[in-house]
Amino acid sequence: MPLDHTHEAAATSWVESARDHPVFPVQNLPLGIFAPADGRPRIGTAIGACILDLAALAERLPEAVRPALAAPTLNALMDRPPAERVALRHAVFALLTDPARRAAAEPCLHAAADCTLHLPFAIGDYTDFYVGIHHATNIGRQFRPDNPLLPNYKHVPIGYHGRASSVRPSGVPVVRPKGQRKPPEAEQPVYGPCARLDYELELGVWIAQGNEPGDPIAIATAGDHVAGFCLLNDWSARDLQAWEYQPLGPFLAKNFHTTVSPWVITAEALAPFRAAQPPRPAGDPAPLPYLWDAGDQARGALAVDLEVLISTAAMRAAGLPPHRLSHGPATNMYWTVAQIVAHHASNGCDLRPGDLLGTGTISAPTPDGYGSLMELSTGGKTPVTLPSGETRSFLEDGDEVILAATARAAGFAPIGFGECRATVLPAR
Amino acid sequence: MPLDHTHEAAATSWVESARDHPVFPVQNLPLGIFAPADGRPRIGTAIGACILDLAALAERLPEAVRPALAAPTLNALMDRPPAERVALRHAVFALLTDPARRAAAEPCLHAAADCTLHLPFAIGDYTDFYVGIHHATNIGRQFRPDNPLLPNYKHVPIGYHGRASSVRPSGVPVVRPKGQRKPPEAEQPVYGPCARLDYELELGVWIAQGNEPGDPIAIATAGDHVAGFCLLNDWSARDLQAWEYQPLGPFLAKNFHTTVSPWVITAEALAPFRAAQPPRPAGDPAPLPYLWDAGDQARGALAVDLEVLISTAAMRAAGLPPHRLSHGPATNMYWTVAQIVAHHASNGCDLRPGDLLGTGTISAPTPDGYGSLMELSTGGKTPVTLPSGETRSFLEDGDEVILAATARAAGFAPIGFGECRATVLPAR
Repeated sequence: MPLDHTHEAAATSWVESARDHPVFPVQNLPLGIFAPADGRPRIGTAIGACILDLAALAERLPEAVRPALAAPTLNALMDRPPAERVALRHAVFALLTDPARRAAAEPCLHAAADCTLHLPFAIGDYTDFYVGIHHATNIGRQFRPDNPLLPNYKHVPIGYHGRASSVRPSGVPVVRPKGQRKPPEAEQPVYGPCARLDYELELGVWIAQGNEPGDPIAIATAGDHVAGFCLLNDWSARDLQAWEYQPLGPFLAKNFHTTVSPWVITAEALAPFRAAQPPRPAGDPAPLPYLWDAGDQARGALAVDLEVLISTAAMRAAGLPPHRLSHGPATNMYWTVAQIVAHHASNGCDLRPGDLLGTGTISAPTPDGYGSLMELSTGGKTPVTLPSGETRSFLEDGDEVILAATARAAGFAPIGFGECRATVLPAR
Repeated sequence: MPLDHTHEAAATSWVESARDHPVFPVQNLPLGIFAPADGRPRIGTAIGACILDLAALAERLPEAVRPALAAPTLNALMDRPPAERVALRHAVFALLTDPARRAAAEPCLHAAADCTLHLPFAIGDYTDFYVGIHHATNIGRQFRPDNPLLPNYKHVPIGYHGRASSVRPSGVPVVRPKGQRKPPEAEQPVYGPCARLDYELELGVWIAQGNEPGDPIAIATAGDHVAGFCLLNDWSARDLQAWEYQPLGPFLAKNFHTTVSPWVITAEALAPFRAAQPPRPAGDPAPLPYLWDAGDQARGALAVDLEVLISTAAMRAAGLPPHRLSHGPATNMYWTVAQIVAHHASNGCDLRPGDLLGTGTISAPTPDGYGSLMELSTGGKTPVTLPSGETRSFLEDGDEVILAATARAAGFAPIGFGECRATVLPAR
């Protein structure tokens, strides 16, 4: 049974808080792991201001996915074939829209405010890409003003391995890392608290079914391997990074903390929000065949608006709301999600359910869409002024960074990604 | 009860094949996961030509570790306090040396030849370091003849994240990766089988108890976090690496396959083989305090001899034995294991039981100790001649690479690391 998004778009849920909900209307149905105040972590879906316990409703959901619904992570569920994931969505949609099923489902609703959200997957491997071409250009320009992008950038979806243990759900505070850095004027490096702590605005891609070791994934089928998406803040210690990253790349500058929004916004929910990949600028090379698929170019981008907000301790004390630092569309990705998945497996590397891929910082071409303070403050040379009168070149203790995303398309209710936030604590 | 290695050194096992065994005498007692021909994976120890089923003997082993002995990986066991790991070693040693306990233990012995060895841990994260200074110098010289080592090398134990899913036990063939590379004379990159496939000789370090996120590990206690060691072959696609690695480091050039020897040679077994870290050459900077511990300098190195052997299809057809390509001591590490553990956690990054750290390629200063073909063949310019008359600049399909290691110290029987081998299969 294929998805019928036009039919879905017209439906409403008997869960009243879901009607016109800006983030979790019944058209979203993200999957995640939640724990009620008195219970163990289990699989659920967000609906309005509530969470529906799917584990408790397993008997009313497709038989093929029932064993996987009993797990405390989504790994086994997302290892099921794509058709079963679609069948699950249909069944949950019916439970939440059909008044005749309300009596069965309603006892399994929890107030989201009373629940704790966990990481949705046991993450096997986390890879971070670098597909935000404006970010790569902005950062490159600070080092190489005349030649910001390296020669491989438009041929290879550049990526590197991150650290799975460092990934934490929204809300877990980030401890300012200590580390070794060499101030520009110093003769010798020092060890101490990071002085240039930054955030990075990214999308995260959750892998569903993987591939066998040694067997690449064809780009035409790469989308079948994507379970869904989240927001991802790739916290970065710029001073550690500058000193450590040659020749093997970022390491301790990144692996102290990575924040993700805990709900998996499924590929099925985002189907109406797929967009054409913007054409490459004239003169750019064509991707090699293993990275090229006409269907992917036609609908491989995401019509998702992204934004970054900051709330400092002084702003909170003054009753000021979070301040938007930047906003821009996710179409500022030079490579599509299918391209990064196909590239990742192009050497036979095996992806596994629950692997997390970061897109890399998604900046817009103009400063109102820069996805990191490193770009907004031009490496610290042009501090940002906040409504409290404070300025920021980099983050200070007590600052909270909030990422948000909303998918929008004509004829469809927008759907959100939920919270991706964390507050900076002092170094220990 | 502290370890008494002098007492241990004089003992012999009632397992006859263990007496004078060059790899697994009773003084070794490595831990690993094995499966008998008709059974599920379980925890065991290698003794001579046999494997002792420790899960089956749990009732005769210390109570504190019994629940962990029932697991199909070593993760829970190595999450126990160091004193419990020592107590387990004492108890297993007693089982295998005390004739009075033979009747109880002997039914739990399996012929190693009839068993399958699995990865010892569910690997959470895999990090590869770069502490072989002669390797770093040799590789750096190929790119920067006058300045092979970058300015940070002697201050920072350089490392990067590898891919946990790519780690496989000895014996699993390695499929030649395909990938994107740009031949030096070509205008555009191509996608196809790697043409410069290489091995790298490394030691692997298995992490035992980890640390809480945000809490660094002090170097004085870093050794307590080490469960043990293995051999590690960091298979490398040099042509993919050269094209992809700027600016974020190696990625697809490394993550297609990493081979480890499946037995964990424990920190306790290696205690008699600790050696002084060679003094830094005059003029080298002193490590920062978080990387400096006098006790670690006195006994933080390993008196372990390493070697690499190759066996080509033609050599096997001609009945020729594997040919030794290089050999050298593990003391050619510029940083100690405690230094890399302390550095890894110095930013608050949380290590977890079963994490794997590679040392990086351990080359000796002279060509007879170079730990990769990239060094032995000077990037392909000086091919190696084999006893079969064949030459190798890089690996060809059918080549088997075998890493071996033996710990040696006066007054103690040598102990080995077991097999770390894999054969190259053609690209798919």
